[in-house]
Order: sequence, then structure tokens, then C-alpha cells
Amino acid sequence: MASIGSAAATTTPLQTTQADVLSEIRNDVVLSSSLWANIALAGVSILLFVYMGRRVSAPRARFIWGATLLIPLISLASYLGLLSGLTVGVVELPPGHALAGEEVLSQWGRYLTWTLSTPMILLALGLLADVDVGSLFTVIAADIAMCVTGLAAALVTSSYLFRWAFYAISSAFFLVVLYALLAEWPAAAADAGAGEIFGTLRSLTVVLWLGYPLVWAVGVEGLALVESVGLTSWGYSVLDIFAKYVFAFLLLRWVAANESTVAARTARSGTDPTATDD
Amino acid sequence: MASIGSAAATTTPLQTTQADVLSEIRNDVVLSSSLWANIALAGVSILLFVYMGRRVSAPRARFIWGATLLIPLISLASYLGLLSGLTVGVVELPPGHALAGEEVLSQWGRYLTWTLSTPMILLALGLLADVDVGSLFTVIAADIAMCVTGLAAALVTSSYLFRWAFYAISSAFFLVVLYALLAEWPAAAADAGAGEIFGTLRSLTVVLWLGYPLVWAVGVEGLALVESVGLTSWGYSVLDIFAKYVFAFLLLRWVAANESTVAARTARSGTDPTATDD
Amino acid sequence: MASIGSAAATTTPLQTTQADVLSEIRNDVVLSSSLWANIALAGVSILLFVYMGRRVSAPRARFIWGATLLIPLISLASYLGLLSGLTVGVVELPPGHALAGEEVLSQWGRYLTWTLSTPMILLALGLLADVDVGSLFTVIAADIAMCVTGLAAALVTSSYLFRWAFYAISSAFFLVVLYALLAEWPAAAADAGAGEIFGTLRSLTVVLWLGYPLVWAVGVEGLALVESVGLTSWGYSVLDIFAKYVFAFLLLRWVAANESTVAARTARSGTDPTATDD
Repeated sequence: MASIGSAAATTTPLQTTQADVLSEIRNDVVLSSSLWANIALAGVSILLFVYMGRRVSAPRARFIWGATLLIPLISLASYLGLLSGLTVGVVELPPGHALAGEEVLSQWGRYLTWTLSTPMILLALGLLADVDVGSLFTVIAADIAMCVTGLAAALVTSSYLFRWAFYAISSAFFLVVLYALLAEWPAAAADAGAGEIFGTLRSLTVVLWLGYPLVWAVGVEGLALVESVGLTSWGYSVLDIFAKYVFAFLLLRWVAANESTVAARTARSGTDPTATDD
Repeated sequence: MASIGSAAATTTPLQTTQADVLSEIRNDVVLSSSLWANIALAGVSILLFVYMGRRVSAPRARFIWGATLLIPLISLASYLGLLSGLTVGVVELPPGHALAGEEVLSQWGRYLTWTLSTPMILLALGLLADVDVGSLFTVIAADIAMCVTGLAAALVTSSYLFRWAFYAISSAFFLVVLYALLAEWPAAAADAGAGEIFGTLRSLTVVLWLGYPLVWAVGVEGLALVESVGLTSWGYSVLDIFAKYVFAFLLLRWVAANESTVAARTARSGTDPTATDD
Repeated sequence: MASIGSAAATTTPLQTTQADVLSEIRNDVVLSSSLWANIALAGVSILLFVYMGRRVSAPRARFIWGATLLIPLISLASYLGLLSGLTVGVVELPPGHALAGEEVLSQWGRYLTWTLSTPMILLALGLLADVDVGSLFTVIAADIAMCVTGLAAALVTSSYLFRWAFYAISSAFFLVVLYALLAEWPAAAADAGAGEIFGTLRSLTVVLWLGYPLVWAVGVEGLALVESVGLTSWGYSVLDIFAKYVFAFLLLRWVAANESTVAARTARSGTDPTATDD
């Protein structure tokens, strides 16, 4: 296996090029603006959401508020990771790819933080719809698997076919999530008196989340119809702005205005200890 | 610390040898067949399970079905990761090991996906037995810790003793899982009217899960009584076939045939919002 | 991008220096004693806790016992990872840092295992206070995000400013956890008849957890007021001893002595299937 040892010297390892990646990003205005825009908006969102939640007092409403506040916080951390070069690596694309043999920046940190941020979005939706714990757990597991296999699709450099195989599997996990959002949870949400806001947020989530695999497919990681790392990054960044900050804003505004509806559900839920006092 | 910098050049980093590992795997028929066999079976299982679940309609039954469907999906992703070389690395075994100084392929991706797939198996068993959320959470935490320390056992290359120390700790976490499966959950399962199928699946899980540390111990990573990477891989692959696809098939067949029993439990569970409507 | 390929050769990759790191640790008595002390105490704690739990029989009390037992087990695994060099890397600190340009050992494995051990501590506290599942989930998510961003703060080497930016974000997640512990959970704990022990453990946790960011700030990773890797490591190790083993001991002693209080709560909880039989 001597060949493996020598081959390694010519490959650029992920994670060892932090400073170089940092200067690459700084020199690419389109790319760095796509990251800074989200850092600024995440910061504004956090301040706004803390302000909006100052008068929310019912326990269940506060939980939803807490889960929602985590969304821009995680996003802020994610974009800092990308900007600092910590969670960006260099991959050499495999034969068959439109950019075969070229080294491109891979923002693998996006997938990593999606494994943490998208479950919070589903948790907020699930709490809103007051769904069964088992259902919530299953959907979140499928969501995490979707993100992890998306990460794999981005990092596989040995074969073009395997990149798309991971893309297909990630999409299959996405179907499980979509099925729950479209066919299972609406009934629970209606039952919990949150049918309208759930419908709005669900539509927002479904439409925007369909955008991510689309950006992947047309961007540098997929078919490379868009060959610019900066424009691909802007694609994800715009989707993040709506799927995270706008989503969270709409949810919090509803929770603040409908505290009594949210609190009333608490009285029916068997998992809340305060509800069992009689 | 100049010595560290220079020493690093002679060590093969994990994750930088994807293409080389890919060709190693392709040239080893025993090894690659152990991976392709699971990819084929995982694909067949997914299609079969989607078909089997088409008539399941009760909410709780659908959750169990959804959790079960994730098992072959995660397995498919896991084996694609191994086949593509993404989650396979080269480790140089430490002094004291039977293959000391030799570089062997380490399928570290197996441990990584076990941290996602084994919780789904425990979740399915726990939902079936209708156990307490706290118990489910504790057992899944022990299970994840078992997989992570198993990964550590496989990746430690500085000392032979430390490899077995991690093996011992991973086994300790396994004991916590075994204790729950054998002593805690059967009562809940009987109470939920699922005693028989729970007993079958629990026995299958306990027996097969004992096989994994056994394969580790006799395979290339442990005592190397079996010195072939391909045969060790087949050991894990055969266990996966029974612990994942056969397990999931038996569970789904029962759920499809006993929807009313599963649904009846929903009426007693305090966590389901539909159950509290009177 | 040829410059990236060549630059990589002069940077020391994490994870490729296991054997070298191992000998570094062995040659530093202060450092290695900080690790061995915890291995010894974790081992003693495990044996003691198994002994203390031998007579606990009520289901809910056993879950809390199980969750608590995982704390020293995970800690043992964590310190083994550090001692073996597996989860310790070499980072070159960025310009602006007091030790700029120097290579120091980074015990990144601590952050990794905190993502598993601190949720268990919060889970034990949450089960004790019988809090809502949604609240528990939110707090644990904030806690995991706190650990992951702490890991990022330790690993960023491209910019001194970004290190502190991650420190600030990690602290923001910590505030969410603190808020729950100080303002949300005490009411639930009092309601569940565990107000006193919850108050004790909460104070212990809050005070000790404040110590971790303090050690980071004054230690080698932050302002480097303490320039010794060994002394910084002892800082974390002492905090771990109180936040993990002493915490778990106090909790288990209370559970063993108050099994009836813990069991009584089971009768009121809607999530326990045995409680709904009438």
C-alpha cells in the first residue's frame, strides 16, 4: 500500500487550508458578500426576536419562542464558520463532472449546521402542530439523515456517479420529511387550533426547502450550469434568509399574538406537568 | 514542536485518500461484494417496505412504519459511503497488534452510520413497547455513546492498549442498552399488547448486536485472528442484513397485520393530541 | 489554486499526529496527571454508582439512575480519547493571539464529548423537574450548539477575532441554557416535589458551567494569561470532577433516598403507559 502514502501528498486535505481559504474568500466579493449578508441579518433577527419575545409568558409559548430563537443563532454560527475558513475545504472534482480536475471551494460547513438548524425548524413546526413525540422524532431523524447524505454528496470526489447517488438518497430522506409536513401534520395542527399559521409556515418551508437541492443541482457541486462558487453560495444564502429569518419572524409574530391559543393547548397535553394539577 | 510537523508527513491522513481507497476496494472482490450485497438488499428492502406500508393508515402505525423505513435508507447511504471511499481510511496499526506497522483499510464510516441507524432500531422497539420518553432518551444516548467509542477503538493507532480500553467502554454502554432491552422494556411491551412481537425482535436484536463486538474482536481491527479486511467486512455485512433488513421486515409485517392493536394504544397515550378529544 | 496545495504541506493537519501527541502528553507530567486523575475518578464513580443503584426499583427512578450513570462513562471515554492522542491536535495560533505563531496542543475532544455529556446532565435535571418534552428538547439543542461553537472557537486558526466571535456565540447559547435552569425549570421542579434537590444541583451546575468559559478565556486558547497547556487542562479537569462526578453522586443519593417521591410523579405523568391503567 505504499502507493496510498505517496498519493496523499498530492491531495489537498480538508481542514488544513484554513488561512488560505480565508484569503480566497476575502478576495471574492460575490462570495464574501453572500456570507456577510447572512451574518448581518442573523444578528438583526436575534435582536428583533429577543425584543418580540419579551412579553411572551405562557410556558408552551416560551418553548416555541426559545426553539425559534435558536434558528438565527445557529445560522450566525454557521456563517462565521464559513467566513473564517474553518468549515470550508478544497475539493478536486471527479472525472465526469463539468469542472473535472479543478479544485473548488466546498462549503461543507453548511451541511453540518443544517443538521442542527433544520431540526429546530421542524421542532418549532411540530410543537406548533402539537404532534406525537414519535412522529417528531422520526421526521427529525429523516431530516438529519438528509443533511448528512447531502454532506456526503458534496464531499465525494472519487466518482461523479456516487455524488449523484448520495443526492438521490438525500432526496429520498427529504420525501419522508415532505410526507410528514404535507400529509401527517396538518391534521394535528388543525386539531390544535393552529391550522392557518401552520399552513403558511409549512408552505414556506416546503417551497424553500425544494430550492436547496435545486441550487445543488445547477451549482458548482452538481451540473455546474452556474460555474461560480460565489453565485452558488448566494443561492443558498437567499434561501436561508427566507427559510430561517422570515420563517422565524412569522412564527414568533403569531405566537406573540396568539399566546392564549398556544397556552390553551397546554391544558390538553398530557406531557405538561402543570396540566395534571387538579 | 518541530518534530510533530515533520512526523506528520510520513503518516497517511484519513480522508485524503478517497480515490486510492476506491481503487483498493474495487480490486478486492471479497471486500467489494460485501458492500454491494448490502446496497442491493437495502434497495430491495426500501421498495418492499414502501409497498408493505401502502395500506397502513393509523397514525401511530404510520410513525413506526416511517421509523422502520429509515433503517434501510440509512444503511444504503452507509454502504455508498464505504464503496465510494469517502468513509474509509487507512490506519497504521500500533505495536502489540498482530498486524503492527501494517496499513489496513478502516471502514470508520460503519461506526458513523451506526450512530444514526441503531437509534432508529431502538426507537422502533421503544415505540412498539410504548416506553417512557425518558427511558427511550437514556437508552438512545447510551447507544450513541457505544457507537462513538467503537469508532474511537477503530481509529486509535497510538497504542494497542487504548484500542481495547475503548472496546471495554463501548461494551459498558452496550450493557446499559442490553439491560433496558432485557429487563426494562418487556414489561412495557406486554402492557401495550405487543409482548410477542417485541420478544421476537428483541431476541433478534440482542443476539445479532452481540455479533458486532465479536467480529471486531476476531477481525483485523482486534486480535486479527481473521486477517482479511474483506472477510471482516463480510462479518459486519451479514450481521447488518439480519439486524436491519430482516428486523425491519418482521416489524413492518406485524404492524401491517396488527394495525388495530397499535392504534388502540394511541387512545391510551397521553402524548397524542387526538386522544384527548372527548 | 496551486498555492493552496503547496501551503498545505507546511501546515500540521489535525488527526495525523496521534503518536506524536501521545508522547508529548506522556512527557508533560502536569498535563498527563490532569487526564489520569479524571480517568481514575470516573472509574471509581462508575463502580460506586452501580453499587448505589442496586436497590432502586421504581421505573422513573431507574431512568434517572441510568441517565446519571452515563455521565461518568462518557467522561471516561472522553479522557481516554485525550490520553491516547486521538482527540488532541496541534493548532498554530493566529496573529493577535498572545502565543501567535506557536503550535499548541488543542484538546478538541473535550468539546466533542461535552456535546454528549452535558445533554445527559440536562436530561437528568429535566427528568428530575419533570419538565415538558419541548422545553427539554430546546434546552438540549441550545446546549449542543454551545459545545459545537466552543469547538469552533478552539479550532479557528485563521483569525484571532473569529475565535472570540465564536466564543461570544457559544456564550449566547449558554444564556439560553442558563435562562431555562434559572427561570423556567425551578417552578416545574417545585411542582414535582423535587424543589430542594433541583435547587442544589442547579446551583452546582450554573456555578461550575460558568467556570468553563472562564478557563477558556484565561487559558492558552483565549487570552493565554495562563500559558501552560497542562494548567489549562487541570482547570477543565477540576471543573469536570465537580460538574460530573460530584453532581451525579448528589443526584443518585437523592434518588435512592426519595424513590417514593420520584415514583409518585410517575402516576401523574401522561407519558408513562403504566400510569394510564386504571
